[in-house]
Amino acid sequence: MKENYFETIKTRESSLPERTAEQISKLIVEQHLTSEDKLPSEFELAELLHVGRGTIREGVKLLVARNVLEIRRGKGTYIAPNPGEVPDPLGFAYYPDQFQLALDLAEIRGQTEPWVARMAAEHATAEDIKRLRESCSIVEQDILNERDHSQNDVLFHVAIAKCTQNLVVPKLIPIITYAVTLFVSLTESRLRMETIVGHREILEAISDGDGQRAEKAMAQHIEYNRALLQEIIGKLKHDGAKNPNNIF
Amino acid sequence: MKENYFETIKTRESSLPERTAEQISKLIVEQHLTSEDKLPSEFELAELLHVGRGTIREGVKLLVARNVLEIRRGKGTYIAPNPGEVPDPLGFAYYPDQFQLALDLAEIRGQTEPWVARMAAEHATAEDIKRLRESCSIVEQDILNERDHSQNDVLFHVAIAKCTQNLVVPKLIPIITYAVTLFVSLTESRLRMETIVGHREILEAISDGDGQRAEKAMAQHIEYNRALLQEIIGKLKHDGAKNPNNIF
Repeated sequence: MKENYFETIKTRESSLPERTAEQISKLIVEQHLTSEDKLPSEFELAELLHVGRGTIREGVKLLVARNVLEIRRGKGTYIAPNPGEVPDPLGFAYYPDQFQLALDLAEIRGQTEPWVARMAAEHATAEDIKRLRESCSIVEQDILNERDHSQNDVLFHVAIAKCTQNLVVPKLIPIITYAVTLFVSLTESRLRMETIVGHREILEAISDGDGQRAEKAMAQHIEYNRALLQEIIGKLKHDGAKNPNNIF
Repeated sequence: MKENYFETIKTRESSLPERTAEQISKLIVEQHLTSEDKLPSEFELAELLHVGRGTIREGVKLLVARNVLEIRRGKGTYIAPNPGEVPDPLGFAYYPDQFQLALDLAEIRGQTEPWVARMAAEHATAEDIKRLRESCSIVEQDILNERDHSQNDVLFHVAIAKCTQNLVVPKLIPIITYAVTLFVSLTESRLRMETIVGHREILEAISDGDGQRAEKAMAQHIEYNRALLQEIIGKLKHDGAKNPNNIF
């Protein structure tokens, strides 16, 4: 590593640990460090960035809090598997109106997932199809055994997104399906059969490489979900329910 | 506040500060605290959550790192304005292939922003149009004065997204436009006129409430950008350039 590799970091506005975190981030990016790589020691980082080891420790804590670094017990500090990816990245949990949030997400799903399904049909590899088939089957097993299938349902939609070969599409699905788990206790019983039939139709269309059919099947599946959600939320609001957190 | 409001937090798997952070998050959600609200004192939180003040301090640090809380100098710790929203929420900065990332984001923009523009035309209020017009004019001034317009360009697209009245769409735009600033030094000079003309056409279509025209104008604008980006990245790759960080 070059000495004086980094600009002197004490000149900028944010706090010293914050600036140190930024410099460590830069190091990770510029040195192409991955989750295979251990972070250089506190001592090395302190030398390199011209700050004390206490400051390094605070900077590292910030990056752990942000999922850029992770502490592996007995092994030390490593780069996280998907550095910088956080659960609930848009802070949906803090939205005051979870009803409106759910409806708005359903609207976005209706506009997004159909083209994702089309693109999936156009670009899926044999390996992708195999994984998608497995994922579809896991959801069916959940439903047939009357388990909550919401987590695996999201994973099925992520598996479709992976078929597109686009790096970012699979990362967007967990964001726009955030509300799936929120209302599952109310929608689930009425969605069981539709989910099995809908998912199979989407799977077969993608497997056949039929983009148009995949797009149409997905549009129907999402619209069915959206309409049911709207009906349920309409009733809840009518009954004066104010906050899903208090209801479920 | 009720005593024993929270489940005892020392029983779960993650670290104590992590669990404390979760409990403070819950408190914020359940009490509907907003950026107007000061966080209860360390002392109060320690009493309520049955942990020491040092642990509260660590938990608060985690939530500050995640933009859930913010420290206002001389005032204390408050709820952040958009709690839980982080810059670069998907960790794009850490993607090893920034070229592919930029192309994949351009693909997503091409599939997304046209329907956003249509929905904007269908739902914009007079106030939205006024803000959009101002935003459009700021980008034009940047271009005419040969300043980097990339930040304000993103804000123009966010202003369009706000016209949809969907809570989440404006939050997705900064994610999918991440790459706009990355290649701006290379695309900018060739995009100046197209940007002015394209933006104005989109603005007028939305202002007229013409969804179809807005959708078409946006599709053209994004496709022009995408094609140019592809051409530039193709050349860079051909020249053996390996990493935008080393190039610019």
